[in-house]
Amino acid sequence: MTPAPAPAMTETAFGVCLVLILLVPWAGAGIALVNAGLGRSRSAAHAMLSSMCVMAVAALVYFAIGFAWQGYAGQPAHAFDIQGKAWSWISSRGFLLSGVEFGLSPVSLTVLLGMFGAGLASIIPLGSGADRWRLGAACASTVILAGWTYPVFAHWIWAGGWLAQLGQNYGLGRGFLDTGGAGTIQAAGGLTALAITWLLGPRRGKYGSGGMPTALPGHHAVFVLLGCFLAWLGWLGLNGSGAILFYGAELGRIALVAVNTTLAAMSAALTAAAITRARFGKTDASLCANGWVAGLVASSAACAFIRPAAAVLIGIVGGALVVYSVEWLELHLRVDDPGGAISVHGLGGIWGLLAVALFAQIPAQGQWLAQLAGIATLLGFILPLSYGLNWLLNRFYRLRVAPEGERQGLDLYELGAGAYPDFMTHNEDLWQR
Amino acid sequence: MTPAPAPAMTETAFGVCLVLILLVPWAGAGIALVNAGLGRSRSAAHAMLSSMCVMAVAALVYFAIGFAWQGYAGQPAHAFDIQGKAWSWISSRGFLLSGVEFGLSPVSLTVLLGMFGAGLASIIPLGSGADRWRLGAACASTVILAGWTYPVFAHWIWAGGWLAQLGQNYGLGRGFLDTGGAGTIQAAGGLTALAITWLLGPRRGKYGSGGMPTALPGHHAVFVLLGCFLAWLGWLGLNGSGAILFYGAELGRIALVAVNTTLAAMSAALTAAAITRARFGKTDASLCANGWVAGLVASSAACAFIRPAAAVLIGIVGGALVVYSVEWLELHLRVDDPGGAISVHGLGGIWGLLAVALFAQIPAQGQWLAQLAGIATLLGFILPLSYGLNWLLNRFYRLRVAPEGERQGLDLYELGAGAYPDFMTHNEDLWQR
Amino acid sequence: MTPAPAPAMTETAFGVCLVLILLVPWAGAGIALVNAGLGRSRSAAHAMLSSMCVMAVAALVYFAIGFAWQGYAGQPAHAFDIQGKAWSWISSRGFLLSGVEFGLSPVSLTVLLGMFGAGLASIIPLGSGADRWRLGAACASTVILAGWTYPVFAHWIWAGGWLAQLGQNYGLGRGFLDTGGAGTIQAAGGLTALAITWLLGPRRGKYGSGGMPTALPGHHAVFVLLGCFLAWLGWLGLNGSGAILFYGAELGRIALVAVNTTLAAMSAALTAAAITRARFGKTDASLCANGWVAGLVASSAACAFIRPAAAVLIGIVGGALVVYSVEWLELHLRVDDPGGAISVHGLGGIWGLLAVALFAQIPAQGQWLAQLAGIATLLGFILPLSYGLNWLLNRFYRLRVAPEGERQGLDLYELGAGAYPDFMTHNEDLWQR
Repeated sequence: MTPAPAPAMTETAFGVCLVLILLVPWAGAGIALVNAGLGRSRSAAHAMLSSMCVMAVAALVYFAIGFAWQGYAGQPAHAFDIQGKAWSWISSRGFLLSGVEFGLSPVSLTVLLGMFGAGLASIIPLGSGADRWRLGAACASTVILAGWTYPVFAHWIWAGGWLAQLGQNYGLGRGFLDTGGAGTIQAAGGLTALAITWLLGPRRGKYGSGGMPTALPGHHAVFVLLGCFLAWLGWLGLNGSGAILFYGAELGRIALVAVNTTLAAMSAALTAAAITRARFGKTDASLCANGWVAGLVASSAACAFIRPAAAVLIGIVGGALVVYSVEWLELHLRVDDPGGAISVHGLGGIWGLLAVALFAQIPAQGQWLAQLAGIATLLGFILPLSYGLNWLLNRFYRLRVAPEGERQGLDLYELGAGAYPDFMTHNEDLWQR
Repeated sequence: MTPAPAPAMTETAFGVCLVLILLVPWAGAGIALVNAGLGRSRSAAHAMLSSMCVMAVAALVYFAIGFAWQGYAGQPAHAFDIQGKAWSWISSRGFLLSGVEFGLSPVSLTVLLGMFGAGLASIIPLGSGADRWRLGAACASTVILAGWTYPVFAHWIWAGGWLAQLGQNYGLGRGFLDTGGAGTIQAAGGLTALAITWLLGPRRGKYGSGGMPTALPGHHAVFVLLGCFLAWLGWLGLNGSGAILFYGAELGRIALVAVNTTLAAMSAALTAAAITRARFGKTDASLCANGWVAGLVASSAACAFIRPAAAVLIGIVGGALVVYSVEWLELHLRVDDPGGAISVHGLGGIWGLLAVALFAQIPAQGQWLAQLAGIATLLGFILPLSYGLNWLLNRFYRLRVAPEGERQGLDLYELGAGAYPDFMTHNEDLWQR
Repeated sequence: MTPAPAPAMTETAFGVCLVLILLVPWAGAGIALVNAGLGRSRSAAHAMLSSMCVMAVAALVYFAIGFAWQGYAGQPAHAFDIQGKAWSWISSRGFLLSGVEFGLSPVSLTVLLGMFGAGLASIIPLGSGADRWRLGAACASTVILAGWTYPVFAHWIWAGGWLAQLGQNYGLGRGFLDTGGAGTIQAAGGLTALAITWLLGPRRGKYGSGGMPTALPGHHAVFVLLGCFLAWLGWLGLNGSGAILFYGAELGRIALVAVNTTLAAMSAALTAAAITRARFGKTDASLCANGWVAGLVASSAACAFIRPAAAVLIGIVGGALVVYSVEWLELHLRVDDPGGAISVHGLGGIWGLLAVALFAQIPAQGQWLAQLAGIATLLGFILPLSYGLNWLLNRFYRLRVAPEGERQGLDLYELGAGAYPDFMTHNEDLWQR
């Protein structure tokens, strides 16, 4: 089952796409910093180290088995035959990147972007599990996400799988469209975050005896907001490289992708600022940061197919959604999500996928149905799969740290040292809660 | 009034320029971090959030109306006819980027760089207004800067406006030259910072009863110095992309631009280190950081036209200027500029513009006059315009926070939460001042 | 002695290589942040400012004289004639970059990469000298490293010097191979760090009366781990640009270089995590960070010539080496190396050079001998040279701060202000030690 010869790219398109992919790790670094800042000071080192380890596990697992499941469009894959139409559901490449020739072909770039994308998706749930998710368990859970859930889903979307084929097979627009991974990376990560939060339960002290949530503010606003800047720069690479690699966008179009990505983040942050100011009398910095990232997330799906004005609208809706969703999850679903990952990446990603149907300038019928099919897959398949596998994992390898660890803080308990040993902190007071 | 077809670029030049532009946001992130670090801990979150919001407002306003005023060389514009020569003063494009085709043309890249440049210019005055400028007022003031002052001035310089035409029309060298925005972005931002500082007045407690200034040191030297590194990386993108986009520099020349940009920053930082060491017996980290950024700023105008040895000289003078200017403004003009934006970006930028006349290797007569015309425009037009419009704004929407807000710190007063809630700080002592 | 006309590159290869080089400063920023975080809070500003100044000195010295010694392959150089074979030992270019034409040639890029590489090498020893190396002395020592040791060694490896010629002259494989500077930058910097540590001696209080080392933990784990992310991004640029510039790698190969670089860092970090967890029961965040960087370092030599599976092995060995080496140096050699630079950059670099002989997919006999010759040169020539010159420097200009300075902290003593004046710290307690 030798892979077919890989398609060629022009040297310039390859070079620009390569460099854009090399900017993608910034997205991971940014989200890591946002998560660390929104958690408590006594688990700050743990938050950063978890991001590092989880990204490392993701890269290794993706290298070992992930890319074998994901593959690349036009390469051999397993497919069902349904009424004479092929439903490609998984790639059939060899493990350990065997058979991959690193030449001027999209395959080399897909390996690289896939590796970084898997790492980014794996960092997302850490925001939700902050202050209570064991490092080892987060790594084990990443094996599931980066080694199975993510690559299979990415095959369906970016490697000629059945979601991408919806257009060709059933005339649903151009098939499911997702330029930079609003669904593939973000919503997949955000829904995994939801599963993890359900399994972990809220932090100790989050819900008082009356059931009312207590505010546990993030410990470092500068890290949170600096992380937003880093994430923006990563997203410019992510959306641009996805557009070239998976949808053959011309270079000229990438300037538009960058404009759209930027405008979506900007309008989302300002929307969150305006809403929190109007509602609470104060502008909430954390929610502005969440809004900013949600704007980036929401821009990912449609950024290569829309006009700038649409990007502004996508951002406004994304920013508003996050503000209300964070509150609603906390108050009504009693979901304790310190980093807001479920709202930002899960809901923001799904909104981004819908926005393709609303705003994409493609002359195609049925794009709505293709996008809805993808969203239904996320909610009806990826979320239960992620919940189920992590539930199983939890049976054998407890996800949540022991109560004593939560009291001490994860830094001391799991790493043996605090993140800020020279600084005096109020942690002692917090321990009383 | 359909725009003329945009000129084409080679795919490679376009790709490299695009990627360089995508590095420009680092300059904004770096300056934001420098500003936050040079302010106090009780307004650190406010400083970062202001940078984020101001950049967002700038991007949206530039998208909505700014680019319409700026335009691109060779595109339709309004021009006076003076003695048979056209003085192009404003572009006549449509709002909301209407008519912009995002293809392999400099126009797409100009939109992107303009959007990031407007954001960078808007972040600069935040350094001067630290610890007392209201978030909402900073956003409103940005509408003026990014929606009017900056794009009109950029039209004059980078879009074939009258300053650029000075060479062709009156034989003044090649017309006003400004590769990466020493005038367009930096001095425009720095002079706006001066206007803002005049309108805001000094921080409470800055000048004691005897009128002597009190040192209010920045709260986080690591952020300040890390911000310098980030800014450097952004400037490599900024100067390189400006050289390609506005002056048609060949790719080979961009390595020289990077060498020059680096050498200017490096020699400026060392000059500031040597001067402060010689004068005070200690090396002043804040002034070294200011010197470093001033070196970057001063390199921006001439970097594409000089030899490396000239870049070293530009840096040395830039670094020295900043050290003395910061002190002089504080002692003699009683200007309270926590981030040093006026000296670093205003004075540094003007020095950079002069340096073109001194060092540029272009066989042209009258370059001096062209550069002086640009500087005169900055001082005689941009500064009064910026002061006047912000004065007007201040009448309707107060720029400065209420005294109570300054006492509490902007974080608590405007955002409802401190940046570092887990850490114990000396803020309580500072409140007594 | 006019230089020969420089060889040409394709525009695309030039552009991609240029942009990759512009990412290299991230490696410096990252290592600076790691070093600052692993030192104490009372010398944090000093650590960052030293990185800035040292990088500045390196750039200026490299510009003034360094590149003249390094040169570029095929350009005029001084050579011994040994048994009819030329042993090129130093370039004979002019000072101050005279004669360098900044065009589409590898020479322009070599200047830029050399300048950044010299800065990176110079930052490495700061990790070892933390908390006691005077700023002025570190700058003076950098003149030696960036103005003489580094460029001469780089000539031997990257500019057609005798180590590179071992293949052609004596049939030792392809001659000494070092894609991204595992030897040229990292081991050279790491061995200089060893020399500096010997000359400085351990920090006050590091070894108690019984001679047992005391743990002096780094003051900021988030900076350390964020620095790792920054370094990773810098290394993607470093290894990629070295592959293109010095070994003519095709663009398609650069995706492989990025995959290999990433996998080495990732597996090294996880190895360090696993070992520390197994041995101490807790995962050590500092050693994970050291492992991560060691993986990057170890990947630098071979990354363009190996398969991804080999990169994983290189990382695993590199990560393990660091954990044991840090402990062994501290316990048995009584070397006080707060940043772990000797183990990470010195040992990691040497392991990377060996790995070329083990894993490189090049059909060549004698590669082992070539690599060993390079390593022998590092240990037998660069280390003594570095030690000797710094010993001499120390006679005239003391490297170590006065005891009072160490007690106060370098920030207060040399800079006149602490890094974190608003925060309450435990420094007072530490002073008792």
